[in-house]
Amino acid sequence: MEQRLSLVTLGVADLRRARAFYTHGLGWVEAQPSNESVVFYQLGGIVLGLYGREALATDAGLDAEGSGFRGAALAYNTRTREEVDGVLSEAERAGGTLVKPAEDVFWGGYSGYFSDPDGHLWEVAWNPFATLDDAGNFFISAD
Amino acid sequence: MEQRLSLVTLGVADLRRARAFYTHGLGWVEAQPSNESVVFYQLGGIVLGLYGREALATDAGLDAEGSGFRGAALAYNTRTREEVDGVLSEAERAGGTLVKPAEDVFWGGYSGYFSDPDGHLWEVAWNPFATLDDAGNFFISAD
Repeated sequence: MEQRLSLVTLGVADLRRARAFYTHGLGWVEAQPSNESVVFYQLGGIVLGLYGREALATDAGLDAEGSGFRGAALAYNTRTREEVDGVLSEAERAGGTLVKPAEDVFWGGYSGYFSDPDGHLWEVAWNPFATLDDAGNFFISAD
Repeated sequence: MEQRLSLVTLGVADLRRARAFYTHGLGWVEAQPSNESVVFYQLGGIVLGLYGREALATDAGLDAEGSGFRGAALAYNTRTREEVDGVLSEAERAGGTLVKPAEDVFWGGYSGYFSDPDGHLWEVAWNPFATLDDAGNFFISAD
């Protein structure tokens, strides 16, 4: 198994609402195979997919019941400390929910959280020890 | 907000067990800032992090209680159809659980699912319509 991730699929209760958030709210461009059942966004070398939550559970042969904390978070790292508050505000205006306003955090960065309309958790963080290149690739080791 | 994802953090109950799965079982190389509290893997231009589930919830100001389906899946796309079964077997040998054996799926690919020791869901898929480059970047549009 190579060391990589190809796709992150977020299960959504209402694809039109989720699409409104990511496509119209955040302004992300949908990849070509998107349709009424599934929406894809090309994010650098990986893909984010939006797909019905029930359909996703069925695809894996699992029961779709679930509640509470999902035990995972996505993160969007900013290029500057100043950007963090603006991104959180943008996500709120797009239909997301502010989960935690940004603050200075113990590891030396500045971060806050929002959730998308289906409750998927996104951290928005500035990490002065990591590297973000012009293309948006994120490298955790500063060197 | 640019169109990108920087990091995926998986909350884990036991970091040593999770590390045993990804580092020793799958053979992934930890990035330099990993320590006893958090482990990072550089996956192309994004990063996968393993962090205590309780600590992750606390970081977002949320209650850590949660159960059932988490509403999301990660996916590892293979270069060939033949690889899929081997990757699922490798994940099982590493301490993961086979959730669904691979089968031909309606969209024309071949896919199955495993979960890691904390129940995080991974699809292993071959998608004949997508592109996987030598560096492991995945592009959903075939062109």
